[in-house]
Amino acid sequence: MLLKNRLFTPGPTPLLPSAQTAMAAFTMHHRTAEFRALFSRVIADMKEFIGTNNDVLILAASGTGVMEGAVTNLTSPGDKVLVLTAGKFGERWRDLAKTFGCAVELISAPYGQTFSLDEIRAKLTPDVRVVYVQATETSTGARHDVQGIAKLVRGAGSDTLLVVDAITGLGTTHLDVDGWGIDVIIGGSQKALMIPPGLAYCAVSERAWQRMETTKTPRYYFDFRRERKAAAKGESAYTPATSLFAALGAALDFIRQMGAGDLVDGRKALIDNAELAAEMTRAGVQALGLKLFAPTAPASAVTAVLAPEGIDSSAIVKGFREKFSAVVANGQGEMKGQLFRIAHLGYYDYLDTVGLLAALEQVLSAMGRSVEFGTAVRAAQQVYARNATSR
Amino acid sequence: MLLKNRLFTPGPTPLLPSAQTAMAAFTMHHRTAEFRALFSRVIADMKEFIGTNNDVLILAASGTGVMEGAVTNLTSPGDKVLVLTAGKFGERWRDLAKTFGCAVELISAPYGQTFSLDEIRAKLTPDVRVVYVQATETSTGARHDVQGIAKLVRGAGSDTLLVVDAITGLGTTHLDVDGWGIDVIIGGSQKALMIPPGLAYCAVSERAWQRMETTKTPRYYFDFRRERKAAAKGESAYTPATSLFAALGAALDFIRQMGAGDLVDGRKALIDNAELAAEMTRAGVQALGLKLFAPTAPASAVTAVLAPEGIDSSAIVKGFREKFSAVVANGQGEMKGQLFRIAHLGYYDYLDTVGLLAALEQVLSAMGRSVEFGTAVRAAQQVYARNATSR
Repeated sequence: MLLKNRLFTPGPTPLLPSAQTAMAAFTMHHRTAEFRALFSRVIADMKEFIGTNNDVLILAASGTGVMEGAVTNLTSPGDKVLVLTAGKFGERWRDLAKTFGCAVELISAPYGQTFSLDEIRAKLTPDVRVVYVQATETSTGARHDVQGIAKLVRGAGSDTLLVVDAITGLGTTHLDVDGWGIDVIIGGSQKALMIPPGLAYCAVSERAWQRMETTKTPRYYFDFRRERKAAAKGESAYTPATSLFAALGAALDFIRQMGAGDLVDGRKALIDNAELAAEMTRAGVQALGLKLFAPTAPASAVTAVLAPEGIDSSAIVKGFREKFSAVVANGQGEMKGQLFRIAHLGYYDYLDTVGLLAALEQVLSAMGRSVEFGTAVRAAQQVYARNATSR
Repeated sequence: MLLKNRLFTPGPTPLLPSAQTAMAAFTMHHRTAEFRALFSRVIADMKEFIGTNNDVLILAASGTGVMEGAVTNLTSPGDKVLVLTAGKFGERWRDLAKTFGCAVELISAPYGQTFSLDEIRAKLTPDVRVVYVQATETSTGARHDVQGIAKLVRGAGSDTLLVVDAITGLGTTHLDVDGWGIDVIIGGSQKALMIPPGLAYCAVSERAWQRMETTKTPRYYFDFRRERKAAAKGESAYTPATSLFAALGAALDFIRQMGAGDLVDGRKALIDNAELAAEMTRAGVQALGLKLFAPTAPASAVTAVLAPEGIDSSAIVKGFREKFSAVVANGQGEMKGQLFRIAHLGYYDYLDTVGLLAALEQVLSAMGRSVEFGTAVRAAQQVYARNATSR
């Protein structure tokens, strides 16, 4: 059969067609009234997408760049920070904090699992300046209890800041940024926003702005205060990735349409969509006898599935690629070969979701595993039907 | 008449149509064999475009990001560096070096002018670890004598490094990177490469790699060594701006076509094109009695023109915008209102060049200045005819 390029990776994700054409057609200079209008509209829309009244910054970088900014802007060398890590991206927080001279207190959970709130409570002493965590750990498909963690951080009555890498969490997970008191939340363009990589963004609380008045770690390209100052004039401090801004504007329009004209409702619809796709996928793979890697707290951003006993997940990934031109993600780092990951971020519909499960049946069958065709699909359909009825 | 959006700004510049469509159509994941092939081909082509055998890195950022990397990777706090500044981007080198704790020795020339080699020779003591300069100062339209400066730096026999911001210099100016001994040369996607902003790149010498083994300033997102290691596997350390990579591939194909299948010849043709457009423009504006802002060493990247006595250049910029939907750049910083700038970077042809001059005549005439229509155009045509004959 004809092959279409199919991305089921947790970023980049399938592109929104209207964003692709907006990007291609865009020829505006960034120091013009027209661009300033687009810039300001996108920033305002992004506040609704994120669900915050805090300042939103959008930078030309991948997500790691803004993660770096959340370390260099909020700390001084020697500051004690608490890093929660349960996967590759948690380790990135650890590496960043160490690189820029923080005294790092670590809470580690095994890959695929999440943290004990009691352990966090015990280590959350008043001298902790910042807590760094993921909303969803992309490398394992686990969801962390951001609300519970935020309650501990805020409850302490201290001025400890909470920074959440929600690069795959935003648009897939309900996060009450202002209500829970998340001081910096970070996202990326190539995730639930359905556009190519190249933009990273964050929302910054008043508490975090105050912290920046005293922190000493040098920063320049990722200097949040300089970006805030420029944004007040409808500009970025340095040349913005203009074509991706145009794409982002189109994506936000699409999300607003998902909410029948209301962007906040659109965000909720996008999250519901990811949650339903994830639930269908979990039901499907389990109906085939496969095991989830993060069964206790699965994220709706991405589902990590353990390869069956005796099968290298790389062969499954390869099977998808060769048979269906479909890209699913392998495990990362130490998990490579052990699991494969299917994303639900952004632009996926019912046909994509059941189609991918049918493809999985085909791939496993071709590898000699006994599969009754339709098993995973049927389980997913039942989830869908139940969900449609309950609405 | 119908209005087309016309960019005559020194970045973003007019987009190459084949790059726009490549960008819109691109849906490849970045951790695949297909993308690694594209990545490696683009890196190899970029070496020919830059004209170097040194390693080339391409990052998701605007040019300032890689400028920051050229400071954080090559210096330790307290290192003495020599910054040559004659405009806004020279001042950026100064600010970056100070931000990251260098002991900055400064040589300043007035806006619109360039440096005395004697002064550089005098200040180039053996303890200077790095010299930072622009190839062309975008804010003033002045060209700096990179060859002469390189000769001084290399002639010293010391291990002083030379870093050149050629963000508007590459593709508009002949620069013999390896022959002259430029240790780090920096460019950006939205300049002569004819694609949108969002990628910055650099070529790094063996001397510079060696320096990085001992420098201590923290870096993470802009860690050049980490990028080099990833590039050896056909990857970037963090998620690359994939759609812009696709655009860049198309742009390099176009430049190769300009050289009848040879990318090095294509680069030369692109530079010749900018030089001819710049010479036509200089002749045109001078025929109207206007004065160049950088007459002694004008860059071919951008021509800065002083507004006539009694006229604010902002009114000229506005006239272009309103009458012809054409964006020319105002002066930056202290030069705002005093000059306007016309770019020649990348995708400009004969019709663009004479058209812009005819538009300038119309704009000045509408402002009440006595203009004999066709004066600037004729002067440009004569330059073109002379150039065509001499080939």
